[in-house]
Amino acid sequence: MAETLTLHPDRLFSSDPIQRDIARRLYNKIKDLPIVSPHGHTDPSWFAENENFSNATELLVQPDHYLLRMLHSYGIPMQSLGFVSKTTDGQEIPVETDPKQVWRTFAKHYYLFLGTPTRTWLDYVFVNVFNIEEALSEDNADSYYQQITDALQLDSFKPRALFERFNIEVIATTEGALDDLKHHKTIKESGWTGKVITAFRPDNVTDPEFEGFEDNLARLAEITQINIDTFAGYLASLQNRRHYFKEMGATSTDHGHATARTLDLSDEDKEALYQTIRSTDFTAEEADRFRAQMLTEMATMSIEDGLVMQIHPGVYRNHNQSLFEQFGRDKGADVPVATEYVHNLRPLLNKYGSHPKFKVIVFTLDETNYTRELAPLAGHYPALKLGPAWWFHDSPEGMRRYRQQVTETAGFYNTVGFNDDTRAFLSIPARHDVARRMDCACLAELVSDHRLTEAQAEKISYDLTYTLVKQAYDL
Amino acid sequence: MAETLTLHPDRLFSSDPIQRDIARRLYNKIKDLPIVSPHGHTDPSWFAENENFSNATELLVQPDHYLLRMLHSYGIPMQSLGFVSKTTDGQEIPVETDPKQVWRTFAKHYYLFLGTPTRTWLDYVFVNVFNIEEALSEDNADSYYQQITDALQLDSFKPRALFERFNIEVIATTEGALDDLKHHKTIKESGWTGKVITAFRPDNVTDPEFEGFEDNLARLAEITQINIDTFAGYLASLQNRRHYFKEMGATSTDHGHATARTLDLSDEDKEALYQTIRSTDFTAEEADRFRAQMLTEMATMSIEDGLVMQIHPGVYRNHNQSLFEQFGRDKGADVPVATEYVHNLRPLLNKYGSHPKFKVIVFTLDETNYTRELAPLAGHYPALKLGPAWWFHDSPEGMRRYRQQVTETAGFYNTVGFNDDTRAFLSIPARHDVARRMDCACLAELVSDHRLTEAQAEKISYDLTYTLVKQAYDL
Amino acid sequence: MAETLTLHPDRLFSSDPIQRDIARRLYNKIKDLPIVSPHGHTDPSWFAENENFSNATELLVQPDHYLLRMLHSYGIPMQSLGFVSKTTDGQEIPVETDPKQVWRTFAKHYYLFLGTPTRTWLDYVFVNVFNIEEALSEDNADSYYQQITDALQLDSFKPRALFERFNIEVIATTEGALDDLKHHKTIKESGWTGKVITAFRPDNVTDPEFEGFEDNLARLAEITQINIDTFAGYLASLQNRRHYFKEMGATSTDHGHATARTLDLSDEDKEALYQTIRSTDFTAEEADRFRAQMLTEMATMSIEDGLVMQIHPGVYRNHNQSLFEQFGRDKGADVPVATEYVHNLRPLLNKYGSHPKFKVIVFTLDETNYTRELAPLAGHYPALKLGPAWWFHDSPEGMRRYRQQVTETAGFYNTVGFNDDTRAFLSIPARHDVARRMDCACLAELVSDHRLTEAQAEKISYDLTYTLVKQAYDL
Repeated sequence: MAETLTLHPDRLFSSDPIQRDIARRLYNKIKDLPIVSPHGHTDPSWFAENENFSNATELLVQPDHYLLRMLHSYGIPMQSLGFVSKTTDGQEIPVETDPKQVWRTFAKHYYLFLGTPTRTWLDYVFVNVFNIEEALSEDNADSYYQQITDALQLDSFKPRALFERFNIEVIATTEGALDDLKHHKTIKESGWTGKVITAFRPDNVTDPEFEGFEDNLARLAEITQINIDTFAGYLASLQNRRHYFKEMGATSTDHGHATARTLDLSDEDKEALYQTIRSTDFTAEEADRFRAQMLTEMATMSIEDGLVMQIHPGVYRNHNQSLFEQFGRDKGADVPVATEYVHNLRPLLNKYGSHPKFKVIVFTLDETNYTRELAPLAGHYPALKLGPAWWFHDSPEGMRRYRQQVTETAGFYNTVGFNDDTRAFLSIPARHDVARRMDCACLAELVSDHRLTEAQAEKISYDLTYTLVKQAYDL
Repeated sequence: MAETLTLHPDRLFSSDPIQRDIARRLYNKIKDLPIVSPHGHTDPSWFAENENFSNATELLVQPDHYLLRMLHSYGIPMQSLGFVSKTTDGQEIPVETDPKQVWRTFAKHYYLFLGTPTRTWLDYVFVNVFNIEEALSEDNADSYYQQITDALQLDSFKPRALFERFNIEVIATTEGALDDLKHHKTIKESGWTGKVITAFRPDNVTDPEFEGFEDNLARLAEITQINIDTFAGYLASLQNRRHYFKEMGATSTDHGHATARTLDLSDEDKEALYQTIRSTDFTAEEADRFRAQMLTEMATMSIEDGLVMQIHPGVYRNHNQSLFEQFGRDKGADVPVATEYVHNLRPLLNKYGSHPKFKVIVFTLDETNYTRELAPLAGHYPALKLGPAWWFHDSPEGMRRYRQQVTETAGFYNTVGFNDDTRAFLSIPARHDVARRMDCACLAELVSDHRLTEAQAEKISYDLTYTLVKQAYDL
Repeated sequence: MAETLTLHPDRLFSSDPIQRDIARRLYNKIKDLPIVSPHGHTDPSWFAENENFSNATELLVQPDHYLLRMLHSYGIPMQSLGFVSKTTDGQEIPVETDPKQVWRTFAKHYYLFLGTPTRTWLDYVFVNVFNIEEALSEDNADSYYQQITDALQLDSFKPRALFERFNIEVIATTEGALDDLKHHKTIKESGWTGKVITAFRPDNVTDPEFEGFEDNLARLAEITQINIDTFAGYLASLQNRRHYFKEMGATSTDHGHATARTLDLSDEDKEALYQTIRSTDFTAEEADRFRAQMLTEMATMSIEDGLVMQIHPGVYRNHNQSLFEQFGRDKGADVPVATEYVHNLRPLLNKYGSHPKFKVIVFTLDETNYTRELAPLAGHYPALKLGPAWWFHDSPEGMRRYRQQVTETAGFYNTVGFNDDTRAFLSIPARHDVARRMDCACLAELVSDHRLTEAQAEKISYDLTYTLVKQAYDL
């Protein structure tokens, strides 16, 4: 007999009755607030075209790098998950083309996710989105697959219907600088009231080591019809794109460099560096200097056009070279590295850290920076706010460490609420629910040992869930 | 109606009844022990002159870099807090000259401090020093200001009266190498029984990159009447100052270099390095080598004169350049950086780490070193003790992390009790109270899961509060 | 009257009744499982010769570097613990030759170990191995010494009897590449059913900076009768030794380099580097490159012969130079340093990280790597598993941090169960008991806040205790 799947109403709350009761009361006041999702990776075409999702595997398994990495770590070949290798060398593994069989493979290994947020999110989706009452196992894989896939064919499971059912007030997607934003345009013109905005991610035209950088710049000039032979022209073309993104609803930009390095060069040095980069004959250090300077340029533009800046450095992308060559990006082989902020952000913060019109949100995957660097910086510079626990740390323990390590130095009000940062659309309510529960659990502990009154905690939990995110992202 | 302000008798104790009851019992046995404050920054003139403090703002807001940084992070200009800019460039912001108005600004933003130790300390001061019964808010800012300021005019609120009321057994201030210590002399000769001693902080004459280093050396020669043209002469002049400080009660020295680097050069190399430094034509690396060597020289002198050495590296001072230029040091813009101890301290520890007459207390703001470097070093070298959680980590969670990360490798007896390290005189009892409560809370957890007996925890809590600090600092 | 010594049945479990009850139930199901000890440093001669241990001091105090370091940190000279200095310079300290007097010194300072795992382990040994009912103190030192030493003379306290009493299913020792493994041979041929296997530790012939490296290579050639003038010959001789170790039961190799650096050089570069190393005229960087390449060579051999690879970098060995010169290795003066895995392991992981026949277990003493580097790497590469909390972190808090920081990203099933890693034979059941209790305590927390069901936790606790270690080490 299959195990029952239930979501306990007190999940993630302390079993200590005093803390649990406080957490419950706090949570009940904020659990139904609308979802504000200022940073994520859902596909705008879903909301533009509003077509039904295909099946359980294509929606829930194949696009989720959290799932792929764990299954890969157990030795399951990407081909068994339905991915076709781009290269032919190496042993030939047959590609599984039946999504139901891929789902079976996933179901068989679902125990690997015990204790991880992935399982917490998925179980929430199974129960709350699909009304499933049994825990997923190898035995019920087929019926699970069918139940989910059948539901996905209903009108009530179309993207816009789910958006409304999820009580999403606004969601931001992320697009590259060269994107035409046609889906956002379609949504805007459709008359649908759902608010789906974009965010400006210019790494492909500001990072000289990005794949296809030269072609990207050519395309940038073409799209904007601006001559980019000079640094000034290049900047003007970026301003042009930012304005277009802003028209399509963007309130923020997003920058994912390898490090947090920033620079503030003289005009002459900037021009010379730009010409070196354009010559395509540059060193790794010159590329790094260019990225560093471009963060500062983006900040200058943020002050002009009001887009909030987001910086999230510190990831070694595509660590597994052969996986990257065979299957491309975002397959779960990105790994965080030690990251430095104090020296790296100084040029930017010295230039604009106290500017009343500048807002920059910084994220980290190197948790050692919370108490040492980021909380002290966020607790001093007015422009700097600290992004939430993110990616590998978007989890109960990650969130607890974040609050325990950030609050005493930066307070609650130098943080910006929660980001789901996901392309897994169905999991968005689950992720926000975990964040809300953990905020309430952490606040309950502070109330339970009399560091806060319950009234204070109530106000803070509301602000963490709703006010701070809207303020931080100008939503 | 204003919110009531109460300090719950069980604050900072676990809400788990077993742990809470143990913590209570432990705390009740040590809460009234005298305060021993071996490291801090109170102004000795207070105790020498024993004049009334002026008003709430000048005493509680303006000198507190914890307050300034948080208010600054919210975008409140320093001028609104009563600070006059030393520079005239940039936009002119009128300086607030009314201390009551500064207090209002502070009160309005007091919510920013929720969840921070600053609020915990201040609420303690409001209740226990000033008998205030309402939580501070924008609405009662004026009456708060008046109640505090009025009290400060009373004889019972003069520095010496408060010192006695706070049950301070001994307090150490910190003075630069060139200080004449006249206030300590006055106190000594006054017949007052309060014990206010100094500590020797020679950074301004041992760090070639300190502001005014050359002038400081000239002054050093003048004060000591020792020719410092040779390294030997320079060392002799430092010995001379140390002896004077020791006469004025000092039992310790204090060294705040950027890194923990130490060196043990040959006599020839030392002389050559000294001459390079004196020539004023030196590189950053040479300055760093000089600082590194000077830590070892100071250790040599510690063995001779018995002053306990304190090293607290790892801070990027004055990170915000324009704030520094406008308003000077200690305005809340110091930020910790990653710090290395194992290689850096090795020359010093290899020379003196097992010397029976040497005592060195090391602090960190980089908590990653607790389990990795500092607890293992303190758990091996007899000369090395580990200073308490400090500055940004002088907080409930900081203290908990300290105990959880240090104890299993270094035990309790390679630590030195608590330092308040503050210039905020009124908050000293509050800070010691937080430390005592957190020690008892941490010990209660160890008793609750049977890692310690309650009798053992009782002995340890007494030692952490009183015995260890007196032993460590020879008080 | 002496304090009673009891081991509380709920020790290390939360005092929260809900968590405690869950932990108890989980623990009761796994507490009696046999001990599988895949990595350790017991002396195989004990089991080969099966002679009685001598006395309490020689067995429990002198070989335990945890004890030595803490006693040393209190200023107790090594001579007072019975160690003879190899050098004669410095002050002459008389060597204590009476083991009973050494035991008294230890007993007098036993309070230093309060709150450390050393005391937890020893108290377990006193109660469960020797049936002692009083806490060790200065007062009862002599009777303690006598009771333990008397027991050690009994047949029931001979190594093989204890091995059986401890319910050890298999234990691995660790031997250098040149070891003749005669004791393992003796055990194998003795007819005794106890399973004592070896592990291959080749640092002394793969690290050019190891003491006696050149002589070691000469010996390697001699033992294997293989000409090692070429890199191919050298590799062949290592393969030869691995095969011999495998015959003597080894299922794993063990590599303790200073860093985690790996390289994957061309055949030409390898040969050239080997010749440079053999010339004895090499730089530190060349030695480091050689070590890095040798990890990859060892991995290649692991794929061939099936020995599981273990890498545990990040220790500054023999930090205290004079202690090392006087008393040699392993006297408690090894200190962890910051360690990097993402860049360093990449050459190895890119070559073999997804190879179905490769298994590598990585350990760290730099806990900052759990969430940042190691859990993400282990959560992606099928070949890589994460070793348990180790050495300084083989402790309740260390284990808790490990589970809290590893599980959410790597799950439970990319870890390998517990290693006791000890030469302190009598403490092995104590150490496994702490690990089992902490696993149950951590799982109980996840059950208590509904992240796991109790049935799931039961399965996991069994796997952590038994299944995973056997799978990981092919036992």
